[in-house]
Amino acid sequence: MRFIVADWGTTRFRGYLIENETIIDQVSSDEGVSSLRRGQHRDVFLSQCGRWLKAEPDAPVLLVGMVGSREGWVEAPYAACPAGPAEIARALAPVDLENGRQGYIIPGLFCEPAPGAADVMRGEETLVLGAGIENGLICSAGTHPKWIEMRNGRIERFATYMTGEMYALLREHSMIGRPATEPEDPKGFDLGLDAAQRNSGENRVGLLHLLFSARASVVSGRMNSNLLAPYLSGLLTGDEINGALSQFGRPSSVTILAAPERAELYIHALERHGIKAETKDMQQALIAGLARIVREHAIG
Amino acid sequence: MRFIVADWGTTRFRGYLIENETIIDQVSSDEGVSSLRRGQHRDVFLSQCGRWLKAEPDAPVLLVGMVGSREGWVEAPYAACPAGPAEIARALAPVDLENGRQGYIIPGLFCEPAPGAADVMRGEETLVLGAGIENGLICSAGTHPKWIEMRNGRIERFATYMTGEMYALLREHSMIGRPATEPEDPKGFDLGLDAAQRNSGENRVGLLHLLFSARASVVSGRMNSNLLAPYLSGLLTGDEINGALSQFGRPSSVTILAAPERAELYIHALERHGIKAETKDMQQALIAGLARIVREHAIG
Repeated sequence: MRFIVADWGTTRFRGYLIENETIIDQVSSDEGVSSLRRGQHRDVFLSQCGRWLKAEPDAPVLLVGMVGSREGWVEAPYAACPAGPAEIARALAPVDLENGRQGYIIPGLFCEPAPGAADVMRGEETLVLGAGIENGLICSAGTHPKWIEMRNGRIERFATYMTGEMYALLREHSMIGRPATEPEDPKGFDLGLDAAQRNSGENRVGLLHLLFSARASVVSGRMNSNLLAPYLSGLLTGDEINGALSQFGRPSSVTILAAPERAELYIHALERHGIKAETKDMQQALIAGLARIVREHAIG
Repeated sequence: MRFIVADWGTTRFRGYLIENETIIDQVSSDEGVSSLRRGQHRDVFLSQCGRWLKAEPDAPVLLVGMVGSREGWVEAPYAACPAGPAEIARALAPVDLENGRQGYIIPGLFCEPAPGAADVMRGEETLVLGAGIENGLICSAGTHPKWIEMRNGRIERFATYMTGEMYALLREHSMIGRPATEPEDPKGFDLGLDAAQRNSGENRVGLLHLLFSARASVVSGRMNSNLLAPYLSGLLTGDEINGALSQFGRPSSVTILAAPERAELYIHALERHGIKAETKDMQQALIAGLARIVREHAIG
């Protein structure tokens, strides 16, 4: 079975023609959702993928990512957790392509990871459903890492952390990151993980204190300035992991979906908790997840 | 006894002529430390306070705040905690004024609030020594709030939180604060304090998750967008207070040094913990602290 996909995020458009979970043709551009105005999405899609539509008149068309947000083509309302391929296929949001043909935007997911806590995702649900994990904990570690609990092949609940964005804020806009110098000494990452432990257990001191303390260590001459940036990364990553393990329990292993460099840091940090981590290829997971949703859609 | 003071911070210069803890003359300008280059400080001081130097040839001259930092007039090395007026007076850093006369920069303080944690202050030490608290916990709540433990009239240890700066980062530079609308609904502050409780105790979820969750509540339609900004303020303030109480124990009362509006929020948040808060006037505290240091210096 062939199908056509737009993986359409905030900053990138990526189109794929897929057959049996293999990419047989692809396009990409910087026409991300944030660069477009309402009404421009169909034209962008047709100019990028129109030749596939003509060549494959029967191929299903799926769109995934921020294209379904309020700032996207049409808003695809969040589906509620728990959700698997069947629930997601039932909540697909149609868009008109051309000549009466429709594409389907994959809805994001909403959940309450803890009582009163709201959380949302858009795009990661597809990735995660293709990771081949029936039961277990997955960490999809981008700018806003998501910890996702799988139960019987469905997404039971999840929690997002603003770790990557926070690191960027501290480096680019804050007094905290200002004393950092390069070349960075990667040993700072472990020191940051150590510091994160002072914010767990009974005598926790607060992340907002540990962040100030990182700067204070440098300006008081207790820490070299080239350790600061990796230290902040370790502190934020460590605090994220401590919170996630506290929310989701301590499994014996976690599946990581992330760029290889970032995945290595998570593997290392989880090792300190005695937790094994295995990684999966993100593009393969995305395509496998799309294929599952397409099959459900064809059945439904 | 008369003395001359420069309260010289990052953005403001404030000069005072003081007699018996009363201001009898004052000047101020925007010639803060961050707007000056090395070598300009003496000229600024003489142009602002030169007439007092001539009129009061025997008055001691004290300088307090970021004027003693690496970017200031001269760097006044941090004194170590525990420190009271005597320890601070012994660590004053002299600067040449004119005709052989010297001024004295009050050193900042360094401490380890918890093993391995470094912290620093510059300016608050003087404020706190004038608050009239021999034993107890003080919160000096500016952009970087400091919780300070007093023991036998000396600063035993302290911990700084980047709460105010973090709020500004989230509002001005982050995806998290972007959906916030005005006019703000102040009820959000209490909802944020509620959320902070989910990051204390055994099943703590992590501040980085709660921050993302605040945005998710708005974009998923669970929370009105005009609650978001006060919610973020309540969440950050609540997490700061939880960390500080965990570090410093739970006293029956806390002394707050802050602008009146900010102080009200702390009083309210501490009430929820069953802790009474009393406030002190910041300018009076600063002058009283300076007077204590001047007296020690005169004796020393």
